[in-house]
Amino acid sequence: MGAVSLSWHILSFLFLLLLASSDAASSHCAYQGPIVRNISNAFQSNFGRGGLSHITIAGALSHGLKEVEVWLQTFSPGSRTPIHRHSCEEVFIILKGKGTLLLASSSFNHPGKPNEFPVYTNATFIVPVNDPHQIWNTSEDEDLQLLAIISRPPAKIFIYDDWYMHHAAAKLKYPYYWDEECYYQPKDEL
Amino acid sequence: MGAVSLSWHILSFLFLLLLASSDAASSHCAYQGPIVRNISNAFQSNFGRGGLSHITIAGALSHGLKEVEVWLQTFSPGSRTPIHRHSCEEVFIILKGKGTLLLASSSFNHPGKPNEFPVYTNATFIVPVNDPHQIWNTSEDEDLQLLAIISRPPAKIFIYDDWYMHHAAAKLKYPYYWDEECYYQPKDEL
Repeated sequence: MGAVSLSWHILSFLFLLLLASSDAASSHCAYQGPIVRNISNAFQSNFGRGGLSHITIAGALSHGLKEVEVWLQTFSPGSRTPIHRHSCEEVFIILKGKGTLLLASSSFNHPGKPNEFPVYTNATFIVPVNDPHQIWNTSEDEDLQLLAIISRPPAKIFIYDDWYMHHAAAKLKYPYYWDEECYYQPKDEL
Repeated sequence: MGAVSLSWHILSFLFLLLLASSDAASSHCAYQGPIVRNISNAFQSNFGRGGLSHITIAGALSHGLKEVEVWLQTFSPGSRTPIHRHSCEEVFIILKGKGTLLLASSSFNHPGKPNEFPVYTNATFIVPVNDPHQIWNTSEDEDLQLLAIISRPPAKIFIYDDWYMHHAAAKLKYPYYWDEECYYQPKDEL
């Protein structure tokens, strides 16, 4: 087998690998499978956020929802969400583990020192529209697993560097990580 | 103690009992307690529907939500929802047990024979807006427990007697059972 032929085989292999990875990345977008799905088999990823496992149980980009979206998220010990706000309602249910909810107000020009609330297995709480918040897994050895339910998907999330950043300076992250790759699908060219 | 005095005591007791039960009935309406709540302590009732235990984890009338609502429901063996539709999105997560989702279409003038889908622990499914559906606990000995998430609360639910009733004849139940008593609060008279 000559050098040219070998290069061709390597190129073909790399091309197939690219196709396969593109397919894996997009397989959870525009879902068209059965009506009833097993969450245990759902696509999960950390989407580049260390310590996170995120599953979109039901979503706008994944499943065509227009009014609600449901996420299953697992935070490893010590990990946390960014400080952020969004102009939608959000309901949390803690499935297991424990941690802290930090919650500030949208009434002033910056969040300010947040209130702290312990959260625990079987706890639920509502984050009011636009209130900056953050969730920490404060455990040293146990995952924190939760369901997050949002309205008005897909989420438009404003991220703060700290609790004293002006609301207007918070950085819009849209589309958010788990929606990003579903927006930018490779298209067949004509 | 004379007969009149005894009657008075009984009347006072009944009056206090009435006050107490009215308070119990309305204590889950217009919730004003802590931000983080323990679901294990939440108000639950069957609201007159045999075999059901319903908890509004987060709701419009209970907690002031305007865009989403989250219910935790447990169906005893053999029990089921009515055949119904609503013009909101609905996401289900089966927490434990097994059963059947019956799902019909809104494309014709009546639901017609529904499709049947087995549902099971860790299953999730979306009921499209306006599609008539029903969920059965088909187990003989195990509860079916699920989370139901709806948009556009409070729910306006249209109930069918059977799968062959005209869509336009389905009966609107609004407010729905668990919201009913929160709408009609006793008011202090001036």
